[in-house]
Amino acid sequence: MSQQTRAQLQADNASVASIARRARAASRELAKLSTETRNEVLKAAAKAIEGGRQRILDANERDCRAAEPAVAAGKLTPAMLARLRVSGGGINLMAWQVRQVAGLENPLGRRLSATELDDGLTLYRESCPFGVIGVVFESRPDVVTQIVSLALKSGNAVILKGGSEAAQTNETLVAIWRECLSCFPAVPVDAINLLQTRADVMDLLTQDREVDLIIPRGSYELVRFIMEHSRIPVLGHGDGLCHVYVDKAADMKKAIDITYDAKVQYPAVCNSAETLLVHEAIAGEFLPQVVAKLKKAGVEIRGDSKTRSLLPNDAIVPATEADWASEYLDLVLSVKVVANLDEAIEHINRYGSRHTDAIVTEDSDAARRFMNEVDSAGVYQNASTRFSDGFRYGFGAELGISTSKLHARGPMGLEGLTTYKYKLYGDGHTVGEYSTGEKKFKHRRIE
Amino acid sequence: MSQQTRAQLQADNASVASIARRARAASRELAKLSTETRNEVLKAAAKAIEGGRQRILDANERDCRAAEPAVAAGKLTPAMLARLRVSGGGINLMAWQVRQVAGLENPLGRRLSATELDDGLTLYRESCPFGVIGVVFESRPDVVTQIVSLALKSGNAVILKGGSEAAQTNETLVAIWRECLSCFPAVPVDAINLLQTRADVMDLLTQDREVDLIIPRGSYELVRFIMEHSRIPVLGHGDGLCHVYVDKAADMKKAIDITYDAKVQYPAVCNSAETLLVHEAIAGEFLPQVVAKLKKAGVEIRGDSKTRSLLPNDAIVPATEADWASEYLDLVLSVKVVANLDEAIEHINRYGSRHTDAIVTEDSDAARRFMNEVDSAGVYQNASTRFSDGFRYGFGAELGISTSKLHARGPMGLEGLTTYKYKLYGDGHTVGEYSTGEKKFKHRRIE
Repeated sequence: MSQQTRAQLQADNASVASIARRARAASRELAKLSTETRNEVLKAAAKAIEGGRQRILDANERDCRAAEPAVAAGKLTPAMLARLRVSGGGINLMAWQVRQVAGLENPLGRRLSATELDDGLTLYRESCPFGVIGVVFESRPDVVTQIVSLALKSGNAVILKGGSEAAQTNETLVAIWRECLSCFPAVPVDAINLLQTRADVMDLLTQDREVDLIIPRGSYELVRFIMEHSRIPVLGHGDGLCHVYVDKAADMKKAIDITYDAKVQYPAVCNSAETLLVHEAIAGEFLPQVVAKLKKAGVEIRGDSKTRSLLPNDAIVPATEADWASEYLDLVLSVKVVANLDEAIEHINRYGSRHTDAIVTEDSDAARRFMNEVDSAGVYQNASTRFSDGFRYGFGAELGISTSKLHARGPMGLEGLTTYKYKLYGDGHTVGEYSTGEKKFKHRRIE
Repeated sequence: MSQQTRAQLQADNASVASIARRARAASRELAKLSTETRNEVLKAAAKAIEGGRQRILDANERDCRAAEPAVAAGKLTPAMLARLRVSGGGINLMAWQVRQVAGLENPLGRRLSATELDDGLTLYRESCPFGVIGVVFESRPDVVTQIVSLALKSGNAVILKGGSEAAQTNETLVAIWRECLSCFPAVPVDAINLLQTRADVMDLLTQDREVDLIIPRGSYELVRFIMEHSRIPVLGHGDGLCHVYVDKAADMKKAIDITYDAKVQYPAVCNSAETLLVHEAIAGEFLPQVVAKLKKAGVEIRGDSKTRSLLPNDAIVPATEADWASEYLDLVLSVKVVANLDEAIEHINRYGSRHTDAIVTEDSDAARRFMNEVDSAGVYQNASTRFSDGFRYGFGAELGISTSKLHARGPMGLEGLTTYKYKLYGDGHTVGEYSTGEKKFKHRRIE
């Protein structure tokens, strides 16, 4: 590809405001595409990603090499460097994921409700795209293809800003996508845009006329920053402080298995458990068993005084107030013995992050109360908090997990990228006649 | 009632933060109430409002008298004073509306989806209350009973701040509600709270841990102010700049009737039309007729040059760029002749407020394009924009109209005051076995 073509395909030297305006215009074109075209674009992109394998690997190699001094200086952890690296298998996975999204059900134009208001006057509620979505993420470059494919499938334009460590990889991936779009005459390349600098993010957050939604994916600090500075609605989660509560009527084996899975299976993610609450009537029997198993897996236990009184003194670090509010994302678990279900619910509603919380109990009344009264996106009986995930929920894709109560709550799939509009079909209907009482509404729901 | 009891019932001398905390605690109690109890409380409140007739009228009389100097000084319009005044009939209407809300379907605990993830592992999405809702409104005191009844029906606590002109009326209404709640042992009086000052509103907007949602109802300035200063998600609409587009394939009678109704039937409200767009092929026939009818109703017409060229010169004020962005809320209409459907759609997406826009046409292709491509909460074919209203949509109540694309779009009924949570029921299920491939998800949708 010539330098000139490349320049056309990239949004160089453009202000964020003008990128946002072009993305808005592109979103209007995108919304007109047929489901077939959208899926064809996705399949072509999957092929383009495979075809661009060497370009992606080269760019990623440059990113990884550039990151080495930061690792040596201790500013980047080896784990972060590992997440930055893209392998050949990683590229296959990206292409596979894009094809998966192509295969998902079309989320647009779904009829959500229909009401005959009166003869010849019918109201439909129908799903439609948001328009323009801004996504700010850190490190992992596979987020690019994941987000872009979901956005195109749902008829939305995107403005991306990735971590600076992955700048070259992200730029190459976006270039491949834009090249792919440019092969389809009806598809606007400005549907996909990449911002370069941190200052660009600040500008993006002020574009409330052109950008409909901001999705931050990354650290607690990133998400809080976005939430505090955005004039645009934000969907995401700052932290994941999930609890497992083992009730007095818990099955011992289930309680041990679930606690272990929720903490140990993948501690670095938001849906892992950070605090274990145990009913005092079962604590003496349960805690020694579960702690022995957790310690074998290298878990550090931080317990309140009751917990420590039930266990060998050297096994447990004393928990402080700060522990109840800490998302460790590591092999650390705070443990508290509670007097009853009420105390457990109160603790979770006070310290939790409204993400996912589980009760282990055979008592369906206790489960019902826990699940109604715990104010979280996910409330589970006898299942690990780790199930809180778009793929596990059967959405076919995951865009992120929302701890907001507006719009999408919990894991978000494609549906999270759609809104709806009301379509009203009349035959010259005016309100005047209904105001005078000359005509009356029927309001008949159509199934 | 003694002064002491009254003091207990009112949240005097309390900081906004402590009011918000108490409201949060109250919301947890509210969520536990049965549908029957909630409806009983509403019916009792309707009776209490009727019983408190004289108290309400006295308080309102004090408010109206206090407002007179402001009217004399031109700070308050006579129309605003009229909206402030509560009549005996107005009180009957309040009580009637509360009983209507009692009669609506319970919006909580509705099963929105159900999926069998695997044997013994079932995921439900269920509607539930938000928790605490802040409502900031201007003037009309009937908003108090309207909002409070919808909030209680949907299990939410409310924190209200009304216009200062209606301070005494609002205080009396809230006192009557709180007295009514205090008669039910299971119902917390702190479910209903009233803030006093403008500074309180600023404090309210920072309580993002305790308050889940802010609904502003009032002027454009009020809504913009709230949207810009709130850390809590805001639902509402700043302005209602609605359009009627008369297509070349319009039926002449429908076009005249709809334009007239959308502008004249009630010009002071957000769903009235502000701009008329006319296809040039029909403008010569349509404009003289509709303008004659509108002028007879006292409507001032502001036209672009093409419009003026089609009409007697003295009939039309020249429209400026500012007119296309103006919400007159009055008997004024801006008129523009457009070359085609594309120009109409582009004009609406550029200047509109994403509220409600109508096309008048017999051409279903044109209607389809208009309704898909106009980016508004309501898109209508052959019906007046004035239909955009919760009662007309058959919601049985209206909380406001949202021009946000998140959560609720367009008129909001009770459903707008609910969110959802995912409830997952397992039998000791852990993620580990699904990660290793030992177990596989079924993801079977349950109807």
